[in-house]
Amino acid sequence: MSQRIDALICPRWAIPVEPEITVHEGLCLAVDKGRILKLLPRIDANQQFCPDVVYERPDHVLIPGLVNTHTHAAMALMRGLGEDLPLESWLNERIWPTEMRLVCPEFIDDGAQLAIMEMLRGGITCFADMYFYPERTAQIAVNSGIRMVAGMIAIEFPTPWSTDASDCISKGLAVHDTYKTQPLISTMFAPHAPYTVSDTTLTRIRQLADELDVPVQIHLHETAKEVEDALSKNGMRPLQRLKELGLLNPSLMAVHATQLTVDEITTLAQTGCSVVHCPRSNLKLSSGACPVADLLSAGVNVALGTDSAAANNRLDLLAEMNTAALFGKFVAGDPTVLPASTMLELATLNGARALGLDKEIGSLLPGKSADAVCIEFKDPGTQPVLDPLSQLVYAAGRENVTDVWIAGEHLLENRTMTRMNEESVMQKAGRWAERMTVS
Amino acid sequence: MSQRIDALICPRWAIPVEPEITVHEGLCLAVDKGRILKLLPRIDANQQFCPDVVYERPDHVLIPGLVNTHTHAAMALMRGLGEDLPLESWLNERIWPTEMRLVCPEFIDDGAQLAIMEMLRGGITCFADMYFYPERTAQIAVNSGIRMVAGMIAIEFPTPWSTDASDCISKGLAVHDTYKTQPLISTMFAPHAPYTVSDTTLTRIRQLADELDVPVQIHLHETAKEVEDALSKNGMRPLQRLKELGLLNPSLMAVHATQLTVDEITTLAQTGCSVVHCPRSNLKLSSGACPVADLLSAGVNVALGTDSAAANNRLDLLAEMNTAALFGKFVAGDPTVLPASTMLELATLNGARALGLDKEIGSLLPGKSADAVCIEFKDPGTQPVLDPLSQLVYAAGRENVTDVWIAGEHLLENRTMTRMNEESVMQKAGRWAERMTVS
Repeated sequence: MSQRIDALICPRWAIPVEPEITVHEGLCLAVDKGRILKLLPRIDANQQFCPDVVYERPDHVLIPGLVNTHTHAAMALMRGLGEDLPLESWLNERIWPTEMRLVCPEFIDDGAQLAIMEMLRGGITCFADMYFYPERTAQIAVNSGIRMVAGMIAIEFPTPWSTDASDCISKGLAVHDTYKTQPLISTMFAPHAPYTVSDTTLTRIRQLADELDVPVQIHLHETAKEVEDALSKNGMRPLQRLKELGLLNPSLMAVHATQLTVDEITTLAQTGCSVVHCPRSNLKLSSGACPVADLLSAGVNVALGTDSAAANNRLDLLAEMNTAALFGKFVAGDPTVLPASTMLELATLNGARALGLDKEIGSLLPGKSADAVCIEFKDPGTQPVLDPLSQLVYAAGRENVTDVWIAGEHLLENRTMTRMNEESVMQKAGRWAERMTVS
Repeated sequence: MSQRIDALICPRWAIPVEPEITVHEGLCLAVDKGRILKLLPRIDANQQFCPDVVYERPDHVLIPGLVNTHTHAAMALMRGLGEDLPLESWLNERIWPTEMRLVCPEFIDDGAQLAIMEMLRGGITCFADMYFYPERTAQIAVNSGIRMVAGMIAIEFPTPWSTDASDCISKGLAVHDTYKTQPLISTMFAPHAPYTVSDTTLTRIRQLADELDVPVQIHLHETAKEVEDALSKNGMRPLQRLKELGLLNPSLMAVHATQLTVDEITTLAQTGCSVVHCPRSNLKLSSGACPVADLLSAGVNVALGTDSAAANNRLDLLAEMNTAALFGKFVAGDPTVLPASTMLELATLNGARALGLDKEIGSLLPGKSADAVCIEFKDPGTQPVLDPLSQLVYAAGRENVTDVWIAGEHLLENRTMTRMNEESVMQKAGRWAERMTVS
């Protein structure tokens, strides 16, 4: 007697990531009530299950949804604002003045919608966000069906959203309370950076994070200048300062981490911190090189982030996987490190781990949420298929993503968005563009 | 009285590259008999011309066709064969044994067709090829309508196509003779590398290249090991050896050039050589970093190549532009170098210059061949458009290419191939894949 289930997804290949990153051919994913039941051979699925819908995906690889572990979603409206500048000028002359002038709840709504559409189309099913008005972005995420970790951002100086860090924290805690009943929304503290957040604020965040049991994400050692300035100002490197404040533990995500000594890599490993690697942002802003291969060897959990579309300029985790592999081989001086399998782990399970969500997402294990993505190998650029894992990381692009499910909901179906109105969102983005000045 | 012309292409933006890399809004490209007549305002075009066809492209940027200055097209069939290996093992254990076993005229035909489809879909209108059986690839190029510079490859050891370098040269010269009446096919000498070609052969190639007035392309200083081995064997670095053999002049393209001293950069500039930068291949094989910003400062003409799909794994010049910008900023330690405008020049006009084709292609100047590409900014990942040049290089991908014209022929129209049968080519690629062994 077969069991009725919601859906059976039948790709040619499946890479479940857990229990291991192996390419299976001819397995199907049984999904019911938003959960993964089983990954099993077609013939067994036909005997055991009676699915309401069967998705035939004969040229496709099925993978867990991609986890974008660091972004500033609403900044999608500032894509292309200020190119080919150093980080400090980019922030001080372009991004921050524009933010002070334009950022408001409507800006966030329209920017977050644009970003979420771009991310869904690229196979991203979960994003961790650090930006003003997290309550607005979280509401947009709820409306769109994507999974989000809302950053409770903290920054000392005044912003369009907040007067000081204490105000940020109050508003962040309100977001935490408002969204705790939403199954796809969780929260994290997101102190902006060591140079914009005081010791007092960092200490308070550490206490609150422990109380609420949420992770903490901070831009850390992004540039050599950041580290040098901190040495002048505080007499120690930012990582050391965080250590002394008690912030280094498995709930901490160090974003960027392009400036690390051998000892600092050991410290990150011993304290169980995660590193969020944003290779395309680091390269474009010439920030430096995160030593990904060394971090992984030391046992550090490394995840991937796109950073913002203003810095990158794509919210595209397939591009980040590809760049992380290529750039990481160069940095290590060794083409055998960071193979394709490792890249997929960084982009899925490691992101889930960093965000404390690995019981729920990050692989296609039975019991986890049905957050999954189909990628099609059917155009000249993805033929022939000698090795599906290599094809995914080195040859495919987000244009090959055809289907996205989050908690079992089919949000992208054969390249068509099922919930969001793309035309309307892009029109609004165009209107914001008219209000920005481009040199 | 208005002049009848073949076509008027009406994009929102046009970047002609010559006389300068500026974004123009509202200009149209008038095309007749395969040639560019003029880039002019819509209102003037309506008065002066009576086009047979008007192409409305209201969300698009029009650019010159992209020039892929270094590839091995037929190797597209080996995409994904041997991943995450060092260059020497990759060549000795995977690529060369597979070539000896499988490469034959039919392999070349099927591989070249696959590669050409991929390139056309990505806006590449001209490719310079270095591979066995150039006569077959040239014929496939003629059939497909793409522009090709057929490499008269030379290598001392036996290949499926040739017994020795002298045999290569004879066969290459036959290709030169056969295709000299084909308007879209030209030739170049393509001695494989300093370590696979003798002094005698290089000297002969220099003489023949002068007689026939064709350029010469060679893999040069691709890895540190190549340079070290040469020092042991010949007592000098490969570039010095080529200099002593008289090969350094404006017709020479040094492909890769990841190992260059300051003096060697000066030598390349003084002798007028071009460098063909293949960033994604260099990164993936961890070969080293071509000092692009320094080469450009010294006045060296730098072009871009994809290398083969076996090394890369995409024949995608938009990805190479993007990677060259990001990686080049990192290598230079300066985010202000290699701006988007420079990348477009590398991918178009500089490639044309390297190949000796800049009178014919590389920009949208009146009189040049109508080799042009439309790229659409209409999906969430390319909105809003604050800066079309930045959007092209940093945000767009080949998935945004909608139209390709070569010598006025519309080979890709609204994302549909007009001449080639994609299904059939991909089926053949799949059959070759079955004959390859993947570890």
